[in-house]
Amino acid sequence: MGEENRSAHASRGGAREARRAARAQRKAVKLPYIRRRLPVIDLLSTEAVEVIEANAETILEEIGIEFRRDPESLRLWREAGADVQGERVRVPRGLARALLKTAPREFTVHARNPERNVRFGGDATVFSPVGGPPFVTDLDRGRRYGTLEDLHNFIKLAHSAPAIHFSGGSTVEPMDIPAGKRHLDVQYAFFRYSDQGCEATPETPGHAADAVRMAELLFGDSFVDQHAVVLGNINSNSPLTYDGRMLGALREFAAHNQGTIVVPAVLAGAMGPVTAAGCMAEILAETLAGMALTQIVRPGSPVIMGSFVGAVSMRTGSPTFGTPEATQMIFATAQLARRLGVPCRSGGSLCSSKVADAQAAYESAHTLLPTLLAGVNLVTHAAGWLEGGLVSGYEKFVMDADQLAMMQVLAGGMDMSERGQAMGAIREVGPGSHFLGCAHTQENFETAFHQSTIADYSSYEQWSLEGSLTAEQRANRVWKKMLAEYEDPGLDPALDEALLHFMAERKAVLLDSVEED
Amino acid sequence: MGEENRSAHASRGGAREARRAARAQRKAVKLPYIRRRLPVIDLLSTEAVEVIEANAETILEEIGIEFRRDPESLRLWREAGADVQGERVRVPRGLARALLKTAPREFTVHARNPERNVRFGGDATVFSPVGGPPFVTDLDRGRRYGTLEDLHNFIKLAHSAPAIHFSGGSTVEPMDIPAGKRHLDVQYAFFRYSDQGCEATPETPGHAADAVRMAELLFGDSFVDQHAVVLGNINSNSPLTYDGRMLGALREFAAHNQGTIVVPAVLAGAMGPVTAAGCMAEILAETLAGMALTQIVRPGSPVIMGSFVGAVSMRTGSPTFGTPEATQMIFATAQLARRLGVPCRSGGSLCSSKVADAQAAYESAHTLLPTLLAGVNLVTHAAGWLEGGLVSGYEKFVMDADQLAMMQVLAGGMDMSERGQAMGAIREVGPGSHFLGCAHTQENFETAFHQSTIADYSSYEQWSLEGSLTAEQRANRVWKKMLAEYEDPGLDPALDEALLHFMAERKAVLLDSVEED
Repeated sequence: MGEENRSAHASRGGAREARRAARAQRKAVKLPYIRRRLPVIDLLSTEAVEVIEANAETILEEIGIEFRRDPESLRLWREAGADVQGERVRVPRGLARALLKTAPREFTVHARNPERNVRFGGDATVFSPVGGPPFVTDLDRGRRYGTLEDLHNFIKLAHSAPAIHFSGGSTVEPMDIPAGKRHLDVQYAFFRYSDQGCEATPETPGHAADAVRMAELLFGDSFVDQHAVVLGNINSNSPLTYDGRMLGALREFAAHNQGTIVVPAVLAGAMGPVTAAGCMAEILAETLAGMALTQIVRPGSPVIMGSFVGAVSMRTGSPTFGTPEATQMIFATAQLARRLGVPCRSGGSLCSSKVADAQAAYESAHTLLPTLLAGVNLVTHAAGWLEGGLVSGYEKFVMDADQLAMMQVLAGGMDMSERGQAMGAIREVGPGSHFLGCAHTQENFETAFHQSTIADYSSYEQWSLEGSLTAEQRANRVWKKMLAEYEDPGLDPALDEALLHFMAERKAVLLDSVEED
Repeated sequence: MGEENRSAHASRGGAREARRAARAQRKAVKLPYIRRRLPVIDLLSTEAVEVIEANAETILEEIGIEFRRDPESLRLWREAGADVQGERVRVPRGLARALLKTAPREFTVHARNPERNVRFGGDATVFSPVGGPPFVTDLDRGRRYGTLEDLHNFIKLAHSAPAIHFSGGSTVEPMDIPAGKRHLDVQYAFFRYSDQGCEATPETPGHAADAVRMAELLFGDSFVDQHAVVLGNINSNSPLTYDGRMLGALREFAAHNQGTIVVPAVLAGAMGPVTAAGCMAEILAETLAGMALTQIVRPGSPVIMGSFVGAVSMRTGSPTFGTPEATQMIFATAQLARRLGVPCRSGGSLCSSKVADAQAAYESAHTLLPTLLAGVNLVTHAAGWLEGGLVSGYEKFVMDADQLAMMQVLAGGMDMSERGQAMGAIREVGPGSHFLGCAHTQENFETAFHQSTIADYSSYEQWSLEGSLTAEQRANRVWKKMLAEYEDPGLDPALDEALLHFMAERKAVLLDSVEED
């Protein structure tokens, strides 16, 4: 047994001083969004990204993109100089890129608490929870359809987690509310239970308009016209297609100067070629077209280039995440966005696993760490994602949130101050002793390391005595504690009243089922 | 529910063509060691590494390193120009670095199967399993002391795993063999049950000499004098101390031109300061002194700069892994070694977890991915590590091995060939269709993606029908299958006889307990 194995024992006895002092545990403090102090990592060579960019332009010019069931988009493209045949839009080489010159390199999404405003672009990184799953799971009740109560719970967890900077959108779909009216309850919940920034549901142009109207009620019409207060996530229908609903929502958001995220959902081998370089050309072509459209609608409106990447299992046809191909595509997306001069969304804590086990953690970590190192600005699905996005997991949510806090420390870079260099401590301790009780350790232990809320570091004997719990079982306690300790940020009664009144009016006229486009 | 969540369903139905073709599953092929085709990632600024380097020289010159109970090391240091007071060796600024100029930038460790030779340094990365744990665990029998049979099993698993390129050393300690004789059975097992390269136990100078003698029996005296055929892992006793046993072993290996790995085991807050920059200065000072000694003993002898890094939990005094501080130190170690011009060992698949759960996977992934991206050359503890190195886990071993195969794909970089660009496929498929059945997918699906041996990608319904197994439970089946299918590489009966004869001779004279130095 070497020193490396012995180390697990060696320090335990001597840590008493530090342990005693650490007993008074700190309360978790909400962190501001990240400003990365790490170098930008370009995993692809300049030659490689230039090939991908050239291929994207070839796709736009020669194959084109279908803009389906939205004559207004076709009209706008024709006016902008594209070749429009039926619903197929072929964009001359360089046109989309030229149109994108008006898009801001960075922008702020305002929250109702200004301290929670977040910035997208440059060295900013914002963590946001999972969005969209119809199912929910926890260790007590198992896998089931999500409800409005579940959504409220997840909004409260995201509000409370130190390193979740943005509430995201529809953390779980409240399936107990009719689909045609659901977006109202979802938007209200985000505005009501957290004062962080959030997304808005863009499933249809009508939903998008309702979300913008609710934002105007909360922030005031003129403020909203000049500032982004919500983000709308616009998925293309890869390959090379946008549908009328998403196009209508995109135009609605852009026209009101609200942020759009243009995101192809490409699983290599299914919605894209079986190779990463092929998928990236397709993703770049689709995002160039979608982002350019926002600038045609309203030059200067804020837009984020996104990718949602994975690969399809050649055995089962199911999505896979955390694989080398996905890692490469996350790095490539951020690199391409930097060259375009727009903020970037990619990555997250994605996985295929049905439960919050080792598979879930390996896959999520191999998505999240590349996301941070790549310099992604908006990290959607950063907490809670299970089963390829069909399920929001309570335990997975708090496990991921713990990892996010670690990523935030990592992003801060190595402390090279005098305190960080610790030469005084090295001199004080000298050879053959230990640092557990030295002055430098005593002075810095409170802030020295990230303290995981999930990991167990006790001895095997202690861990056994406490019931041999897995990380998933410990996480079950953590989310319950967080919900019990949730602090309601409150909402001005007049604003609350206005939102509830608007919802009631809209619900009276909307159908239960989603309008078809 | 957005496209991103819908994707989990969308592709499943359409994958039939690809699925059918994939049914004939490939046999796992043993992979050569990695030549990285990724850019070198320097996480620290030049300014920051220069500060760490200057601090290391200050430590060497002003504080010094204790070389305990080894008068020969003190004599060698005095002759080389160091200031030796008692057992304290103060090394003038720049001397250690100057002595290291004779160390090779890259070197090969020869295996008895030349196809399994591995190279250390430059763009090479070699994965090697966990070493040193006294305990072993699996789902059937639980946690218990390791035996010789367990060691044989782990050697066979490492021999069979596609992306484990080197057998490492003492994957588990065979506690059923007396400590004073154990090293013989361990060395024999590595030479007998795999034709991959391996380490040699350096617990004492006598053990090191026995290992070298066994290597000479296997490879021939003159070959061993000119070629490294084993590596010895030399741990310092941080802070700033080497003990007589390890020093004797270091001198033994260096004198015989065998590879040494000089590795401080530093948990920040215990054997090093509570800060990463402080630990790195200490690690660099210790490794500079240890590596320089190998060059004083035999200029040109192969040596690797190592770090084994973690942080001590300020709550329990136990080791923690996969934290931001450790990630920073892995990147820093590789960066410092590159500047020194020596190969580097760091990282691995380290964790504190008692079981192969989500904690184990998060921590291991957050150690392993930085290790690869940092450009580490030798990745010890890359598979099987549990509970801070006290336990080798069967399930953890095959789960990690699966991750290693993914890292090997990632290290290959993005395929930018015509096949990788896939423009033909994008043209063929066009907008609004899918790539599952297209010619390009059919031609490439076999080699397209890494196929995980552990991950489950089936639907929730299918997964439930099959017993709702966790990754750990699936891994239990995988290692049993691997052991059942292990192919014995055999060993020339005359060589086998010679090794067994030597062991019997040595066992007749060695005490059951380990000699004291």
